[in-house]
Amino acid sequence: MSLFISLEGPDGSGKTMQLDLLETALRDAGYDVLRSREPGGTAISEKIRDLILDPANREMDPRTEAYLYAASRAQHVAQLIRPALAEGKIVLLDRFVDSSLIYQGLGRGLGIDEVAQLNSFATGGLLPDVTFMVYIDYEEGLRRKLSQANHTLDRLEAEESSFHRMVNLGYLELTGRYPERIRLIDGARDPRTVHEDILQQTLALLAENS
Amino acid sequence: MSLFISLEGPDGSGKTMQLDLLETALRDAGYDVLRSREPGGTAISEKIRDLILDPANREMDPRTEAYLYAASRAQHVAQLIRPALAEGKIVLLDRFVDSSLIYQGLGRGLGIDEVAQLNSFATGGLLPDVTFMVYIDYEEGLRRKLSQANHTLDRLEAEESSFHRMVNLGYLELTGRYPERIRLIDGARDPRTVHEDILQQTLALLAENS
Repeated sequence: MSLFISLEGPDGSGKTMQLDLLETALRDAGYDVLRSREPGGTAISEKIRDLILDPANREMDPRTEAYLYAASRAQHVAQLIRPALAEGKIVLLDRFVDSSLIYQGLGRGLGIDEVAQLNSFATGGLLPDVTFMVYIDYEEGLRRKLSQANHTLDRLEAEESSFHRMVNLGYLELTGRYPERIRLIDGARDPRTVHEDILQQTLALLAENS
Repeated sequence: MSLFISLEGPDGSGKTMQLDLLETALRDAGYDVLRSREPGGTAISEKIRDLILDPANREMDPRTEAYLYAASRAQHVAQLIRPALAEGKIVLLDRFVDSSLIYQGLGRGLGIDEVAQLNSFATGGLLPDVTFMVYIDYEEGLRRKLSQANHTLDRLEAEESSFHRMVNLGYLELTGRYPERIRLIDGARDPRTVHEDILQQTLALLAENS
């Protein structure tokens, strides 16, 4: 049967590497996996992603940004996520609606409830079965990010540090807000240890659901 | 003082020509006018417009479409419309939120109330002081449109005629729904007569407000 998993976490938390490791482990164990990311995931969603992240669009209003994320998500849910779940796949997402609650709701100051309301029509109420919140301090995340060779900052990454500090606290706040769904993962540990933690929790969920 | 006017109407109703005539008449009378259109109006909104209307995006989900229109509108309201009204200008818009209620709410079947709700965050509750609904029958509109030289159909125009018939009825339904704001204009008359009608109503509103 299907399982819907999202990974969230601040920049530099290692969530993309964790998704790589989790995807490989689940495929090796014989599971049918759909791996995707937000914003993006479909051709139309990727075009919307380009619009959102293009540094040229610096005049973008926070509400415009929130609607574009929701537009990208609506397409993703309709075209990819719902069909995959209906086929019994494990869906692994790099970011989902929680990222909007944090970045637009808290970071941009639009309000978590307002952004949740704005997104409810995009998801049709669909939420992950479990969200792994891979957490890391703002300073540690920035240090890791900048140590990557040739890394240039996109429009959101180029925001001031006060924005990113708020965003980092948002990850913790959101974890407290949805304790049934979101599990806090300490991303400061070495990547193999983090992976084993996430994998064991995932296998336990699969065993429960089967 | 400011006045916010939108023109709505089915394809081929002549609303763009009517906006040209109204804009010229108001400028000649010494008014400060901002003329714009939806989807579009700002650089970011125009990029979103291109995405919406591109025939390549035929897999676009109706909800994605609705969010993209709202995104474009949020930018337009924040960057152009509110500042112009604050400066006391007359704002003339080719389409506004009513077009979304008709195309996405009725035409795509998402529901007028749902689409109104989805857009409320984009407009922040801002509505035109008056909306002129330039109405024309579906068959007459199509005949006019196709008689234009070199006219190629964009993604929405290429929809089936049942979609467009529903949309045409939507213009009438909406007029009945907001009688305080929307005024029905018979677009089947010759363009000069239609223009005089709209201009006299506009001048009367300006006289009332001054």
